[in-house]
Amino acid sequence: MAADEPRRFGRRVSAAGLAPSVPPAAVPSGEDDFIARHFRPIAGPGALDLLDDAACIAPPAGRDLILTKDALVAGVHFFPDDPPASIARKAIRVNLSDLAAKGAKPLGVLLAIALPADHRDDWVGRFARGLAEDCATYAAPLLGGDTVRTPGPLAISITALGTVPRRGMVPRTGAKPGHILVVTGTIGDAALGLQVRADPDVAWAEAVGRDGLAFLLDRYLHPQPRLALADALRAHASAAMDVSDGLVGDAFKMLRASGVGGTLVADAVPLSPAAAAAVAAAPELRERALTGGDDYEILAAMPDAAVDGFADAAAALGVAVARIGVVGTAEMPLALVDAAGEDVVLAGAASFSHFGT
Amino acid sequence: MAADEPRRFGRRVSAAGLAPSVPPAAVPSGEDDFIARHFRPIAGPGALDLLDDAACIAPPAGRDLILTKDALVAGVHFFPDDPPASIARKAIRVNLSDLAAKGAKPLGVLLAIALPADHRDDWVGRFARGLAEDCATYAAPLLGGDTVRTPGPLAISITALGTVPRRGMVPRTGAKPGHILVVTGTIGDAALGLQVRADPDVAWAEAVGRDGLAFLLDRYLHPQPRLALADALRAHASAAMDVSDGLVGDAFKMLRASGVGGTLVADAVPLSPAAAAAVAAAPELRERALTGGDDYEILAAMPDAAVDGFADAAAALGVAVARIGVVGTAEMPLALVDAAGEDVVLAGAASFSHFGT
Repeated sequence: MAADEPRRFGRRVSAAGLAPSVPPAAVPSGEDDFIARHFRPIAGPGALDLLDDAACIAPPAGRDLILTKDALVAGVHFFPDDPPASIARKAIRVNLSDLAAKGAKPLGVLLAIALPADHRDDWVGRFARGLAEDCATYAAPLLGGDTVRTPGPLAISITALGTVPRRGMVPRTGAKPGHILVVTGTIGDAALGLQVRADPDVAWAEAVGRDGLAFLLDRYLHPQPRLALADALRAHASAAMDVSDGLVGDAFKMLRASGVGGTLVADAVPLSPAAAAAVAAAPELRERALTGGDDYEILAAMPDAAVDGFADAAAALGVAVARIGVVGTAEMPLALVDAAGEDVVLAGAASFSHFGT
Repeated sequence: MAADEPRRFGRRVSAAGLAPSVPPAAVPSGEDDFIARHFRPIAGPGALDLLDDAACIAPPAGRDLILTKDALVAGVHFFPDDPPASIARKAIRVNLSDLAAKGAKPLGVLLAIALPADHRDDWVGRFARGLAEDCATYAAPLLGGDTVRTPGPLAISITALGTVPRRGMVPRTGAKPGHILVVTGTIGDAALGLQVRADPDVAWAEAVGRDGLAFLLDRYLHPQPRLALADALRAHASAAMDVSDGLVGDAFKMLRASGVGGTLVADAVPLSPAAAAAVAAAPELRERALTGGDDYEILAAMPDAAVDGFADAAAALGVAVARIGVVGTAEMPLALVDAAGEDVVLAGAASFSHFGT
């Protein structure tokens, strides 16, 4: 039994596998090495050193539990040759971003990782170190998980647990007519960073400059979950979600989930200097910035009177907040307009203008 | 966008994917169809109809939370052409089995499923129906999850949450010298069922008979998580784990985790009539029964005086309990012996006899 054979944290899922002619390995000696070396150092209290069948934690009294689970597959959600620490960070952060959008404080994470047979032990080591750093940074200890082998691409599933004060979760469904739509940070960087990742010599590279390209790439590789804003979101927002699939689509999703219409002002969407330079050089990128994914900023709806308080709280944490639209009645269509109020037509989404009609 | 395109429950993980030349689909219309049709009917309270970024539940007061996560990959942990409902049942049950072994009551599950591009919508429908039935049977509602596409084999990750009374979890580490090792049900059926699944015409098929083969196959495909025994385990057992990787290896794992030695009596391990018939026809199968995986019975250590109480409680629930060994001191090796006390040497594990020495 190779020392790096995938292991369930605590035990393997299935030693028998599908090879009944191979004697099962009944020898547990050395078995915990893989987990012990890579993941036990990350284990939080309650993880029982990853030696048991399950983790055990006493949930904080008087708080609701927030649960989210995101899966990422090599070649679909990240490049197989992305740095392993970056893959780990993205996997945990997209989950923590969901907690942030709900106003939650992390409690811990569980990790399942499916490793191809040719995985390298040092790859796992670097993955685990990236994960460990994020677990520490975001106070989200590893509680348990599973490692299995796969004949397919490397895949990761993380379950994140968080808590909010009882009935304190910020829902997706709370947007009301008259509310203001706001978004944190800047939008579109990750979608442009993905283009840089796929082709470092994109046509607009010179316009953006080396530092700008590095910024965009970092925004793609390393989302910044806005956990610091969780308290401010709970205090001010009526509805929120993280922007993972593209601002326009996500905003319309939130409005639809809330049973309302609304207007999003394309020209009000905040762009970073790098993204603005890219859009100036290649105007068609504006649509990508508006509709591309992986921003992991927070989109929220709140009463007009709450916006300044939210923006002040965010500013104190170094995060900008922009007003980008207004929530309308259920009878209103969902509209994307420019600063003059004219409809913005997106080339990449022919049926877009019909949405909500 | 195809109606059956994989979706995150609530939203997709990454619309951008790795195809920056393809305009991202900004149109959310019809997006929730996939989740709505297949998974929303299973959603429990707190799942927010799978429309939000996360689930929200109020954990039962005064109880500890038990968390476990198992991943299964097609071709590794199940046959790709196993019935989809059976795959779903196995995926949820191996997780619920962990909860059972810890003495926990289910609270809910989260599901991530990675679907190949050529997956069929009716496959997902049958998977979801199998999952739904088990969610209902075991009172483990679906709380949330994620669906993603994969270029590799279908893969499933389930996170199960359960609760125990505060500090009531049955650990793996509590076996003490003098305790009796017990196991529920019968051992080896699933390992033999796997052989039947791989080759319906195994050499010992006639000896076992059609009904026996069907029984073994069912034991392989459909583990029975012993959740009904959770209360009795908490009342009587000092240590427990579910038998997933083979009885001998798992027993030695539990003893090692408890820092003790012990003796397992091979002849005392309970076999079903079908497994006994198979072993009688092909004596080499005895080792497979002892060391094969996927039993999902409960192995426990408890004081001698507690065994009858546990066995009576289990019998009342229709589950047999067998005494299969005794826990020794830390200085004792871990030994597998026959009824006469002679060492049993396993052909498939050359280093087995050295374990613990």
